[in-house]
Amino acid sequence: MAPIDCKPTPEDFWVAETLGELGESELLRRLKQFAPPGQLDDDTAQINQNSQELLINTDMFVDGIHFSDDTTTAEDVGWRAVAANLSDLAASGVDQIIGINVGLVAPAHTPWDWIEGVYKGMEAALNQFGGVILGGDCSNGQQKLLAITALGTLGPLRLHRGHARPGDVLVVSGAHGLSRLGLALLQRDPILECVALPEQLKNAAVMAHQRPQPALKALRALETCKPAELPWRAGGTDSSDGLLMAVQGLCQSSGCRAVLHSNDLPRAQEWPEGSSWDQWCLNGGEDFELVLSLPASWARAWLKVMPRSQSVGYMEVGPPKVIWADGSGEVIGSSEFQHFKQN
Amino acid sequence: MAPIDCKPTPEDFWVAETLGELGESELLRRLKQFAPPGQLDDDTAQINQNSQELLINTDMFVDGIHFSDDTTTAEDVGWRAVAANLSDLAASGVDQIIGINVGLVAPAHTPWDWIEGVYKGMEAALNQFGGVILGGDCSNGQQKLLAITALGTLGPLRLHRGHARPGDVLVVSGAHGLSRLGLALLQRDPILECVALPEQLKNAAVMAHQRPQPALKALRALETCKPAELPWRAGGTDSSDGLLMAVQGLCQSSGCRAVLHSNDLPRAQEWPEGSSWDQWCLNGGEDFELVLSLPASWARAWLKVMPRSQSVGYMEVGPPKVIWADGSGEVIGSSEFQHFKQN
Repeated sequence: MAPIDCKPTPEDFWVAETLGELGESELLRRLKQFAPPGQLDDDTAQINQNSQELLINTDMFVDGIHFSDDTTTAEDVGWRAVAANLSDLAASGVDQIIGINVGLVAPAHTPWDWIEGVYKGMEAALNQFGGVILGGDCSNGQQKLLAITALGTLGPLRLHRGHARPGDVLVVSGAHGLSRLGLALLQRDPILECVALPEQLKNAAVMAHQRPQPALKALRALETCKPAELPWRAGGTDSSDGLLMAVQGLCQSSGCRAVLHSNDLPRAQEWPEGSSWDQWCLNGGEDFELVLSLPASWARAWLKVMPRSQSVGYMEVGPPKVIWADGSGEVIGSSEFQHFKQN
Repeated sequence: MAPIDCKPTPEDFWVAETLGELGESELLRRLKQFAPPGQLDDDTAQINQNSQELLINTDMFVDGIHFSDDTTTAEDVGWRAVAANLSDLAASGVDQIIGINVGLVAPAHTPWDWIEGVYKGMEAALNQFGGVILGGDCSNGQQKLLAITALGTLGPLRLHRGHARPGDVLVVSGAHGLSRLGLALLQRDPILECVALPEQLKNAAVMAHQRPQPALKALRALETCKPAELPWRAGGTDSSDGLLMAVQGLCQSSGCRAVLHSNDLPRAQEWPEGSSWDQWCLNGGEDFELVLSLPASWARAWLKVMPRSQSVGYMEVGPPKVIWADGSGEVIGSSEFQHFKQN
């Protein structure tokens, strides 16, 4: 029998491009073509109905990625899913939370107790922040997950990433890195073995991870303290993917450069010294604080009324990068949380 | 060593109740406690904003449950996900489709081509039926899935399952069972081996499965043909879970009994005879037709203007069951699609 001719053709070398190779940023860039221009520039979409502006936001929470049974009780999963969603609405300028639609996927062997816990956690968060469960859907699936869509009305200030301006001051509504520290504590991360952390910091960190608070009060204060002579214009986002990604988002959408003071990183009280800790402050993620680009007088007014808020830098003319204020021009790199990292 | 006393205690026999044991109906019943009274009685929730009523609906589409690569191209997945969602809005009385938020989960090895196909399919459906992609979220996960939330404005007629009344005529907007037949054809189901089906029926069945149409035109006709003397009251739902479950839903929410004429099952043209085929007509699912409970004069007017619509029975006083009109009182059983069936 003659050997089969199996010389490879060029097609045999062609491998389809996967999400893991693309990465999240490129995926989002490509998906924009399917929506109206600018529609997907912010996390939250805006709808005008009878001169009432509504905000709508969807967030996915997937077992093993956004939570795990080891570190997050069912109640905490429900609370965090709602809090993360409302954080996006807060960072867009929500007034009243209307409610949420809940898409639930879970394998058939999931105990009812877990589902009940998740709904109790969601209920507790809605009781605290406003809104009700409007509706939803559920399905069998291999992996537990929640797909939550939250709706709210828009207040006087529509925050956009792209509304940052050169000359603005960069301010945040609270400390960053706590949630990541909380996760490390819950996971008994070896990095913590030789560090004596104050109990108060440990408790605050675990609370920040399990029961995060959307920055609705900080938003309310921001609206109240606006100097009368200023227009309703501010750049804003939340730090659910970490402080650095939030600032990078402001830069990319507004076309400005951000300058951060390394001594002004928004560390928590009694935050230990050391560069690995500061990485968590920059890249830890799930901080759910407001990250704002404000005219100086508005920033001053806000810092005065919000005790936990602080200034971290400023925006200037320049390519959309984040640099240190030490004059070196060094671009601050990101160990970006990659949703589609190939394992 | 004395033997360890290992007499089992009652707790040892207690096993946590799982979703598979609960089933979907019981799960939904339990989840209702977490929403305002009546809020979860319809698939679609209603929101009042500045005297504008909005409808919002979430549907999950999970690989291996709602679609599979064997029978559904990526474009068809996108189209069907949108069509199924808009079908719920149609069955609630939507006027204009505002748009959808898309939650996407996919493993890192998913080809970009598949994602692009899904979005092309969604875009094609939105181009045909109205609305745009408003926003969304994406995440890595073990299983491909879409969580779509659709928003629309409410027209003059708010359809509710609970608005069926004794004396109403039961009507449907089209044939049932086609989508299930289409799936069997795509899967080369052995049940079809000895059956010679007309080409036209086969094509219609595959189209019904891959490119279903939400019954927006049928809804528009229903609004237009209402006899002036009647109030805007009609019972309604869609048959995404099959005709029988749709009618059962009308019964349970309204507290009426439904009577079906077995000779009037809404079979497609040239539908083959035989009880297994009629099961698909009753239980096949994914038909996405309107199933309405209407005063007789309104039903007559609608049947006249909608050539594909037909009467299937009537509602009467009685316990909320579905029975045959043969006088036997036999309750029509359901081989209900179980989302949480334990494998």
